[in-house]
Amino acid sequence: MPAISIKGLTMPESPIRKLVPFAEGAKAKGREVYHLNIGQPDIETPPAAFDAIKNSSLKVLEYSHSAGFPSYRLGLVDYYAKVGIDITEDDLIVTTGGSEAILFALNSIADPDDEIIIPEPFYANYNGFGISAGVSVVPVTSRLVDEFALPPIADFESLITDRTKAIMICNPGNPTGYLYTREELEQLKELALKHDLYLIADEVYREFAYDDAEHISILSLDGLEEHAIVIDSVSKRYSMCGARIGAIVSRNKQVMATAMKFAQARLSPPTLAQIASEAALTTGPEYFTNVREEYVKRRDILVDGLNSIEGVYCPKPKGAFYAVASLPVDSAERFAQWLLSTFEKDGHTVMIAPAEGFYATPGMGLNQVRLAYVLNQDALKASVEIIREALREYPGSLLHE
Amino acid sequence: MPAISIKGLTMPESPIRKLVPFAEGAKAKGREVYHLNIGQPDIETPPAAFDAIKNSSLKVLEYSHSAGFPSYRLGLVDYYAKVGIDITEDDLIVTTGGSEAILFALNSIADPDDEIIIPEPFYANYNGFGISAGVSVVPVTSRLVDEFALPPIADFESLITDRTKAIMICNPGNPTGYLYTREELEQLKELALKHDLYLIADEVYREFAYDDAEHISILSLDGLEEHAIVIDSVSKRYSMCGARIGAIVSRNKQVMATAMKFAQARLSPPTLAQIASEAALTTGPEYFTNVREEYVKRRDILVDGLNSIEGVYCPKPKGAFYAVASLPVDSAERFAQWLLSTFEKDGHTVMIAPAEGFYATPGMGLNQVRLAYVLNQDALKASVEIIREALREYPGSLLHE
Repeated sequence: MPAISIKGLTMPESPIRKLVPFAEGAKAKGREVYHLNIGQPDIETPPAAFDAIKNSSLKVLEYSHSAGFPSYRLGLVDYYAKVGIDITEDDLIVTTGGSEAILFALNSIADPDDEIIIPEPFYANYNGFGISAGVSVVPVTSRLVDEFALPPIADFESLITDRTKAIMICNPGNPTGYLYTREELEQLKELALKHDLYLIADEVYREFAYDDAEHISILSLDGLEEHAIVIDSVSKRYSMCGARIGAIVSRNKQVMATAMKFAQARLSPPTLAQIASEAALTTGPEYFTNVREEYVKRRDILVDGLNSIEGVYCPKPKGAFYAVASLPVDSAERFAQWLLSTFEKDGHTVMIAPAEGFYATPGMGLNQVRLAYVLNQDALKASVEIIREALREYPGSLLHE
Repeated sequence: MPAISIKGLTMPESPIRKLVPFAEGAKAKGREVYHLNIGQPDIETPPAAFDAIKNSSLKVLEYSHSAGFPSYRLGLVDYYAKVGIDITEDDLIVTTGGSEAILFALNSIADPDDEIIIPEPFYANYNGFGISAGVSVVPVTSRLVDEFALPPIADFESLITDRTKAIMICNPGNPTGYLYTREELEQLKELALKHDLYLIADEVYREFAYDDAEHISILSLDGLEEHAIVIDSVSKRYSMCGARIGAIVSRNKQVMATAMKFAQARLSPPTLAQIASEAALTTGPEYFTNVREEYVKRRDILVDGLNSIEGVYCPKPKGAFYAVASLPVDSAERFAQWLLSTFEKDGHTVMIAPAEGFYATPGMGLNQVRLAYVLNQDALKASVEIIREALREYPGSLLHE
């Protein structure tokens, strides 16, 4: 039998993949599972998105332009202007989700064995995109005790080599929910300019900034025009994860011309979903105000609830809809498995994502989990109580000692 | 300014990219351009595909399973059974177009500097996917005088090294329209087994086989189960290019498990387009009978027309909807430019794709063009007359000599 690639062999599985059989087992026993492990929001997609598809008079489902429908690109320019980002339609290419935007960015700026520095814990699929593009992901550790603030710039500097091509951040962050301050972003800007590195920011959670905290795009940092590359997506913004529509945005003409060659090779992003995404641009600010209010309530239920449990620590995030908590357990992965295989409270249990898979440094995050607060408030309240009781009963709980 | 990747610099542009400004110039002068350069069919998408979307009661546009909706995968198993391919739903992953299926295949079986042998001329974007995956595309030349039949197996053998991981074909072929015979496919099978190589077949034009010729899938070749990987797509089958729905199909469990890891990293293929594609599976055989009849008429108008022009030679393809012709010109690229920039007949001209970009061997195909017969019969008749007259007037025509 012919061999599999080394790429394929080293490609990581999803951090929750190992838990899926346990979740299926729990369901087979008739237990209800609260899914705190995934980022699929339950918020309704703006009806305008579906209406646009239903009212379309298309007879042939044709390719769009490789960079996306011109009308949608112009609509996006308006959208960016409203969030304070001044670009033209030539500065963006519509992609198949933020995922493809990351691949285009990595392929355009890095060759095999080049390095990208990313603060960990980070969105686990960055590893996969790195392997797809043949790029090495170099982690710089941010710490739970620091609430996942930007690691010291000296830590980045110590990792920069002549193969380093970029620093990549997720802001606000998945899995931490951390929202970078202007001061932190200015530090990253100085670092990128000093070493002539790209700064890539995954800003797909831009609208999800809470407690009057302001999201600052790297595209609004003066002097970073040639170095800033933004990854964007409609997935979370409009609860349209299944659309698979994103964008790569940069004022660097050479980056965009290169990304365009990769875009041409795959012909076009999905047509139907672009029609829906263009219609979603009409979504008014009250939608986001309501969504933010809802997420703040959910966050407070989850995070305050977790912090009321003995031995649990969960920094309160200012963005996105994830939180990372440390638990008083021998192993977060074994605890997550046990929750599904053994525990129940009133016929319910929870599925949580062990945080280990969000770190690239071996041994980090072993007692941490990522939780997404994309469920309704009652489900989150119940989930907290399940975790509280489970930590008392779990045989590997450190509360017993 | 930070540098672009070598990958990005070597990434080829689309073979017609250089012609686009000339086409825009022709349109600015008020000329109508018959587009023989692209594979976007004008055939209507089956209405069931649009109806399924319009009748959907989705409220949240969620991710699908990373391998595609289970119901769609089961529907595809039925579809394959009807075309004589016996697989289970575990043997296929729904992808974002055939493009992503190719990337998943290459990433799963090959590492940087590994080699894939492909008969040229080939679909130009294979180069781009090769570069994205870091794989070297090694061409083996098929010849216009042989009507683009499979090159001698000895030619393949002479190119096989210890880095060769696969042989890849497109059947029926873009750009040649060539349909491989059972004997040719058996030869490829023996070669793949002898050297333990994967055989990848892009079969997206499967339904487009003419003159009672039978399309033979590599998935139906006994003994090739562990070596065969098929690339598929709804784009041409149902005139749904903009759906961006394809599939990677293989009975090799290790290949599929590895491809699944790449599929998980990008989360899911587009949801709306999967709903449309699943509905398109209800398309009856009369649809394809009608479409084939139409394409045969179009092919005959184009190919017989071209062969009636002095100095032109165009083998009559048995599949897909492309043909490659040799023209009596100094340079097919200059002729294609001149058609757009200078020539007109009754206010019309044609856009054709120089074939050079479909060859990987420098200097090949310089007097050849690819033509797609996706326009209506009148437009194709008019296009033939435009080419006939243009070849008389073109200053670089060899007919003058």
